[in-house]
Amino acid sequence: MEKFIHKNFLLQTDTARELYHEHAKKQPIIDYHCHLDPAHIAADRQFNNLGQIWLEGDHYKWRAMRTNGIDERYITGKDTSDWEKFEKWAETVPYTMRNPLYHWTHLELKTAFDVKELLNPKTAKKIYDVCTEKLRTSEFSARGLMKKYNVKVVCTTDDPVDSLEHHIALKNEGFEIKVLPTWRPDKAMAVENPTEYRAYLGKLSEVSGITILKFNDLIEALRNRHDFFASVGCKLSDHGMEEFYAEPHTHSEIENIFDKVYRGNELSKGEIVKFKSAMLHEGAIMDWEKGWTQQFHYGAIRNNNTRLFNQLGADTGFDSIGDFTVAKTMSRFFDRLDKDNKLAKTIIYNLNPKDNDMVATMIGNFQDGSVAGKIQFGSGWWFLDQKTGMEAQMNSLSNLGLLSRFVGMLTDSRSFLSYPRHEYFRRILCNLLGNDIENGLLPASEIEFIGEMVENISYNNSKYFFNF
Amino acid sequence: MEKFIHKNFLLQTDTARELYHEHAKKQPIIDYHCHLDPAHIAADRQFNNLGQIWLEGDHYKWRAMRTNGIDERYITGKDTSDWEKFEKWAETVPYTMRNPLYHWTHLELKTAFDVKELLNPKTAKKIYDVCTEKLRTSEFSARGLMKKYNVKVVCTTDDPVDSLEHHIALKNEGFEIKVLPTWRPDKAMAVENPTEYRAYLGKLSEVSGITILKFNDLIEALRNRHDFFASVGCKLSDHGMEEFYAEPHTHSEIENIFDKVYRGNELSKGEIVKFKSAMLHEGAIMDWEKGWTQQFHYGAIRNNNTRLFNQLGADTGFDSIGDFTVAKTMSRFFDRLDKDNKLAKTIIYNLNPKDNDMVATMIGNFQDGSVAGKIQFGSGWWFLDQKTGMEAQMNSLSNLGLLSRFVGMLTDSRSFLSYPRHEYFRRILCNLLGNDIENGLLPASEIEFIGEMVENISYNNSKYFFNF
Amino acid sequence: MEKFIHKNFLLQTDTARELYHEHAKKQPIIDYHCHLDPAHIAADRQFNNLGQIWLEGDHYKWRAMRTNGIDERYITGKDTSDWEKFEKWAETVPYTMRNPLYHWTHLELKTAFDVKELLNPKTAKKIYDVCTEKLRTSEFSARGLMKKYNVKVVCTTDDPVDSLEHHIALKNEGFEIKVLPTWRPDKAMAVENPTEYRAYLGKLSEVSGITILKFNDLIEALRNRHDFFASVGCKLSDHGMEEFYAEPHTHSEIENIFDKVYRGNELSKGEIVKFKSAMLHEGAIMDWEKGWTQQFHYGAIRNNNTRLFNQLGADTGFDSIGDFTVAKTMSRFFDRLDKDNKLAKTIIYNLNPKDNDMVATMIGNFQDGSVAGKIQFGSGWWFLDQKTGMEAQMNSLSNLGLLSRFVGMLTDSRSFLSYPRHEYFRRILCNLLGNDIENGLLPASEIEFIGEMVENISYNNSKYFFNF
Repeated sequence: MEKFIHKNFLLQTDTARELYHEHAKKQPIIDYHCHLDPAHIAADRQFNNLGQIWLEGDHYKWRAMRTNGIDERYITGKDTSDWEKFEKWAETVPYTMRNPLYHWTHLELKTAFDVKELLNPKTAKKIYDVCTEKLRTSEFSARGLMKKYNVKVVCTTDDPVDSLEHHIALKNEGFEIKVLPTWRPDKAMAVENPTEYRAYLGKLSEVSGITILKFNDLIEALRNRHDFFASVGCKLSDHGMEEFYAEPHTHSEIENIFDKVYRGNELSKGEIVKFKSAMLHEGAIMDWEKGWTQQFHYGAIRNNNTRLFNQLGADTGFDSIGDFTVAKTMSRFFDRLDKDNKLAKTIIYNLNPKDNDMVATMIGNFQDGSVAGKIQFGSGWWFLDQKTGMEAQMNSLSNLGLLSRFVGMLTDSRSFLSYPRHEYFRRILCNLLGNDIENGLLPASEIEFIGEMVENISYNNSKYFFNF
Repeated sequence: MEKFIHKNFLLQTDTARELYHEHAKKQPIIDYHCHLDPAHIAADRQFNNLGQIWLEGDHYKWRAMRTNGIDERYITGKDTSDWEKFEKWAETVPYTMRNPLYHWTHLELKTAFDVKELLNPKTAKKIYDVCTEKLRTSEFSARGLMKKYNVKVVCTTDDPVDSLEHHIALKNEGFEIKVLPTWRPDKAMAVENPTEYRAYLGKLSEVSGITILKFNDLIEALRNRHDFFASVGCKLSDHGMEEFYAEPHTHSEIENIFDKVYRGNELSKGEIVKFKSAMLHEGAIMDWEKGWTQQFHYGAIRNNNTRLFNQLGADTGFDSIGDFTVAKTMSRFFDRLDKDNKLAKTIIYNLNPKDNDMVATMIGNFQDGSVAGKIQFGSGWWFLDQKTGMEAQMNSLSNLGLLSRFVGMLTDSRSFLSYPRHEYFRRILCNLLGNDIENGLLPASEIEFIGEMVENISYNNSKYFFNF
Repeated sequence: MEKFIHKNFLLQTDTARELYHEHAKKQPIIDYHCHLDPAHIAADRQFNNLGQIWLEGDHYKWRAMRTNGIDERYITGKDTSDWEKFEKWAETVPYTMRNPLYHWTHLELKTAFDVKELLNPKTAKKIYDVCTEKLRTSEFSARGLMKKYNVKVVCTTDDPVDSLEHHIALKNEGFEIKVLPTWRPDKAMAVENPTEYRAYLGKLSEVSGITILKFNDLIEALRNRHDFFASVGCKLSDHGMEEFYAEPHTHSEIENIFDKVYRGNELSKGEIVKFKSAMLHEGAIMDWEKGWTQQFHYGAIRNNNTRLFNQLGADTGFDSIGDFTVAKTMSRFFDRLDKDNKLAKTIIYNLNPKDNDMVATMIGNFQDGSVAGKIQFGSGWWFLDQKTGMEAQMNSLSNLGLLSRFVGMLTDSRSFLSYPRHEYFRRILCNLLGNDIENGLLPASEIEFIGEMVENISYNNSKYFFNF
């Protein structure tokens, strides 16, 4: 790997190297949006082997393996061992060249395990053994890995009915890394399936102690949980949505729609949109009241493969980028909140890069001078979490807004091995700035200010923006 | 600024430098689309200070300041001085690195005022004083600045009811720079608000001397003004539209719709689209009859922030990029005109770069060999008026049409200090061509032809295309 | 042309040069999608002159000429000679700089005719004469050109009613290059015009020997022809569509719609969409049954210029890129087939590059491990068949899928002189990989594997994927 994932990986100019090594590298990590299981942190999970930590639930790798002609048995099959799956993954790795998986794989091998060989069928066994041995030491437990990567804060993603027991335990225990919950009420909005929705309302009623018979009760119950999340240190909400929803509606309409779904009836498309519009709006006001930051991840179309969804369930590698038309609705949604002066700090993440410039200008409509970068364009999300995607996001943000005020990177990951993606992001950021300076697009004389900008985007901006 | 905005700014290769310094630089400026106030030219306005000329009405800077956390008082407030506003702008400038404002600011300082320092809080006072002093000399009056930048023609943007008194005065006076009006009948199409529309019809009736009771009268009145605009030297029309409109309709339908809005009734969405379809079509025929060039700026969504629209009005920095689906309607609109052999020379400007390739191929459908480049893909507009946006527009035009026939740059600006954007554009153009030559994508042997191409895109193409 | 279309054209790095010259160059050509006329191959057509072979039916050149202000007489006029048309084309060529036509023109001159001069008005006569003389030799016949470019397989594009007589003749004759038909049933789906459709059904009935009175009969007749195509060596189907169609429908609905159009009645938009949904689905099942690969070319809007369509007919240079919203329908279409385990190998070609990333992720939803790269993202199509378009397609595919499994280039061309586009593609591919290696994005140590990858994408992948 000598000339590949080396000290100056991705850093094409001397200036980029200076920016990275003098400014970016030393910053701690705030991972303000991820999908880590807090139970694993609380229990300080130890992994059995490299196959398990890498392939358990990693649908990015699963997709690549399927594309490479690997049989599903070796991907999600229950009758194959971790080693057998790993072997097939190792066979696939060379075929992922130019895909971010190729970089992530070797960055993780190098930064976590100090393994400098390329993974392929020839090196598979040796790498598996070396890494597995390390994984069984305490340095490589869930917490060990977090410390190794100098993580200061992580925000997990949690349902309003969640007990947050592990967050509370970690807080009480005084674990040195902040592990905070994030309010993700997607299920509270999922009225498409009346039966499942009613069941969810039951759970929500139980944990909140509030009988839910009306929409107003639902909001009260959610606010109760919202307060509870706040008490455990929550600072962010998050929403996974196909599109934005901002359909005009009256309170009685929403009560009627609620009543209809509550009684087990399917809603029409129009009713669903109205209901979600009301829910999103109410939730946004709660976030504003608490000074939280609301996040919107929009534009995915999920579970496209019914056959394998029925076999494997959600989040198994059958989601993709949609092509929705959203600008006017997005504008209406934020405008309604802003009109009442109740627009919280916000991050918008789009999945289709055709929307980059639209989003980068949309945020400008609601910047009000109260907080620098109040409305943020989120870092390249999911499929866009790669060099091209990150560069496109940062270039759009730069051209149409202020890169300097960007809160930067997050992993959005389920894995304790994903922290090098922050390093990846920072190298790309430094490289963009380094190129600009060496091409005379930014003044070399301002290297100090630009160095601070790198530190801010890497760490300080998010620290202050979220009030961690 | 030594290595920043220098002689070879943006010119990465020796060939680019040759093209710029030998061919582009010396060309005069034709600014065929801008928003200068002709009264300021007629009166040869003198500016009080750098704060005034830079911040009065510049919503690009306002957006950046809001994003940077500056209070609205220091942006549009009436209780703060020009200097106080400028101070906040100077504080914001370093945070605009990578945004076009950072380049524009320093290009303007250098080319207009010979100021070579970077603007920031430390240099703010000195720069303010030096520039303010210069601004009070005749060299820096409205006309002085136009001459300084070697401007030959500017086309302002004017409403059909406008008296064009300043254009006439300038013509009569024999002012050496052509200041021509542009026909922008947006208000004549704005039937969304019946009361305002009726008031507008009143004005139009008054200035045209034609009583407007029917749609036919409206067209007659507009043609009267169109003739008047032509008599003052107008060569272009312009339309700001969310989308294209080409809904089939009958004459009696349009008369009925007109009658409805005339009587103060709100129109349905369908009626508005039909009405605008009729109006656009009629206007396009007038433009064709006179040999004018029609411009269409489409795809913005405006006034997204109701709260601040109510405080500050339109064009205050709350507009953004939309994501409309327009290809089929656009095609139908032009096809209807072309079928009758009444399609005028045309420039299409899109605001969402996702449409670049669509537009660049759409224009090819209606090139008819009568004029080279009869249908033009307009230069990067508004949010896209920056390096990335310009390069994307020129690359799409090159790949899918003929760059050589491009009419090139315009400022679209309200400011007398925006002419360096032509320089910026020319440097980017020369850099693209220089890179192509040095990379063997264009033959170095053809440097003479390519030099002419640069001259044509900088000046000659627009001169001949518009018949100035 | 010394420093222009030279040995290392497009190859910016030493590694790119090694990859191209050691690996890509020597691979034969499989042109699995083109529009060559099989009659010309069977008859081994000899061309009269360079004007004829270049300008007869080449609507890319026609569009450029119209844009350059050339009168239609010299483009498609019947009263002008091949030489006169060529002269106007030569006049236009310098104005196409940065358009792919400029590269294609000189690549064809060099690789077919060994002409190294640039085409322009000064060189026109000489180049015309030299090439015309060569064209009259057997080395430059239809077959001669195919052999010159080391072509192994071509797949033409054929209607289900076609007799395939020329394919059969070539097979029987033992022509060394495989010339295979492709099933393109667009006319069998074109229910927009009931009269033409009925006439088409008549022809289909005749050639299949099956009386068509019902939808079921239509499917039976098509299956009969599908079998026949298979017997002549067909391995691919192809569909030209504005959008994807996957509207739920019942069999009786489709029979009723068929009955309606069969009796000469115009269908509603909804009926057309349902009918096409049924047809596409049935055809896809036939392709799956035979192990063929189905191709979908979607997103063009055709015949935008009614005036010239009426004069010149289809495919004359008046088509362009549409901006349809297709993701959900596309997903539903493939999902329905996959649910029944009847999804054939597939290639999706989009015309609007805004869809690149959407398509590149869509294919991942239906990769099932049965064949490497089962669902393919097709190479830059039509307007996107140029350097920027190819690079964008390969970058999206790389970032979101597996470039290594890509079946690569095709010409989609009507011309026997288009084979250098494979060279053009391969140079671009090698250049991308070479840059990545020299920038440390791919490990230089893996040059051997990457060389094989180049060979695979150039030739082997398509050979094995299509079972040629």
